[in-house]
Amino acid sequence: MIPYQHTVQYYETDRMGITHHSNYIRWMEEARIDFMKQIGWNYAKLEELGIISPVLGLSCAYKESTTFSDVVLIDIKVRSFTGVKMELGYEMRKVTVPENADALQKDAASLFPAGPLVCEATSRHCFLDANGRPVRLKRDYPELYECLMQYVVPEDAK
Amino acid sequence: MIPYQHTVQYYETDRMGITHHSNYIRWMEEARIDFMKQIGWNYAKLEELGIISPVLGLSCAYKESTTFSDVVLIDIKVRSFTGVKMELGYEMRKVTVPENADALQKDAASLFPAGPLVCEATSRHCFLDANGRPVRLKRDYPELYECLMQYVVPEDAK
Amino acid sequence: MIPYQHTVQYYETDRMGITHHSNYIRWMEEARIDFMKQIGWNYAKLEELGIISPVLGLSCAYKESTTFSDVVLIDIKVRSFTGVKMELGYEMRKVTVPENADALQKDAASLFPAGPLVCEATSRHCFLDANGRPVRLKRDYPELYECLMQYVVPEDAK
Amino acid sequence: MIPYQHTVQYYETDRMGITHHSNYIRWMEEARIDFMKQIGWNYAKLEELGIISPVLGLSCAYKESTTFSDVVLIDIKVRSFTGVKMELGYEMRKVTVPENADALQKDAASLFPAGPLVCEATSRHCFLDANGRPVRLKRDYPELYECLMQYVVPEDAK
Repeated sequence: MIPYQHTVQYYETDRMGITHHSNYIRWMEEARIDFMKQIGWNYAKLEELGIISPVLGLSCAYKESTTFSDVVLIDIKVRSFTGVKMELGYEMRKVTVPENADALQKDAASLFPAGPLVCEATSRHCFLDANGRPVRLKRDYPELYECLMQYVVPEDAK
Repeated sequence: MIPYQHTVQYYETDRMGITHHSNYIRWMEEARIDFMKQIGWNYAKLEELGIISPVLGLSCAYKESTTFSDVVLIDIKVRSFTGVKMELGYEMRKVTVPENADALQKDAASLFPAGPLVCEATSRHCFLDANGRPVRLKRDYPELYECLMQYVVPEDAK
Repeated sequence: MIPYQHTVQYYETDRMGITHHSNYIRWMEEARIDFMKQIGWNYAKLEELGIISPVLGLSCAYKESTTFSDVVLIDIKVRSFTGVKMELGYEMRKVTVPENADALQKDAASLFPAGPLVCEATSRHCFLDANGRPVRLKRDYPELYECLMQYVVPEDAK
Repeated sequence: MIPYQHTVQYYETDRMGITHHSNYIRWMEEARIDFMKQIGWNYAKLEELGIISPVLGLSCAYKESTTFSDVVLIDIKVRSFTGVKMELGYEMRKVTVPENADALQKDAASLFPAGPLVCEATSRHCFLDANGRPVRLKRDYPELYECLMQYVVPEDAK
């Protein structure tokens, strides 16, 4: 799994000079959508099947601040998945990209050693059909069920 | 017409210490929706009729900066309206609310003299039906047409 | 304590037709700043003393969706406070304001019975001085310490 | 000059199902910062010299809507530059990236033919020093002056 990469935008900072904390919640969504794409279930495919996966809840622990132009790498893990509910875990690390690195090579960040954790987070989801009714993935979408199952991290790797 | 009142939120500031310029575009929308409500055509009523009024374009001239906790009063004028297209004009002024003013009296701002202009803006709109086809208000919704017509400012008051 | 009132803006909705979940984090900030103002410690006063109170972490449980023009009332409680760290709890309820209610009476919402819980949340904070060093409120700002202490809810009221 | 590339995020859509119009203003900033970086004057370098370049005004004409997961390419031109003020022009085009394109090759978009114009915009800027006083680039920062001068488009190419 390739970590999702977000570059902090100027408009994401606040008058304290750092990234406003609400933006990390948005980056979680960006990373989650990218994760689903990487495992072969992009949003368009889910939408076609009429499946949506709303956020039931989330938690966020801010460790260090980030600011404009910082590059943040986000790792996602499936912490638990029952076929009805799913919990994802996020680790966000700041990467120091050298000034003279090619401005345009957007994936360059993954070439540099990731710095310290800036944010640790979780999100909880269910799966609904087009009518807002809970979907049992194992029965109704076994392929998606099997796919997500194989990304669940073992208990001792959490 | 009572000016729309917006209090600048902390998350609307940026690392320059002032309100990020993109937020004024959002306040224009807030003020526009409030204006329609004041003249008796709130969003729910338009939605029921299947009318939407997308933004075709806008312009914004920033005069002075604002920042967290500033109270901004927004005046709207209908600068032109043809029954098919409409142009609105916005004047935003900062109000200095005394520290000891009642924290909870949200409309108190209009009691204090408005300060200098902080932003002048315009937005252009058309009217579409549920199928995305242009609506001719004069023929199809004469009541809305007449209502908007009476708010068009005369040429020499622009 | 008067609950903080937020009206959902059009730009806060997403393509699912409901309020995007990241906005609740911003409303928590709005409500927190209003809470501090109500207890006599508005942001300007804290800033003058050089005290900032960053968000260390947060959690959010989404119960029901909200959407454009919904009025949300937010109740805040101090769940714990040690003089060094503070945890706040938030209860957000949707209020149904009758169509014919005065459009301009912004505090009208508190007159109507609050509906079901839409979101329950917590945030954790510390207190830093201008140099980013932890502040011990009991010793350095006893007045603020005493003030916050009296708002801590007893264990059995959580 | 390589066009700036922005992928529309889910949280940038609104309940009409399309990108909320305020986000294009933010993409203009993203593209502007990338443009300055490409011509050798990234934000950190300007900040070190104590130069800021606030937005004095802007205009935006929305041609076609975009929505979640669309890839938008943004071209910037320096439309005028006097050494004291600068006007930039923006052309935003939607690119249709085939479903089976490598999810991770972020610059892939520029390989595909750009679609129709979705938004045309301008922004006006001045240059201020750390004390908020206007800077005369020709005299004070001749290198930056010469650099920007060479990107001004000839009158007939506008």
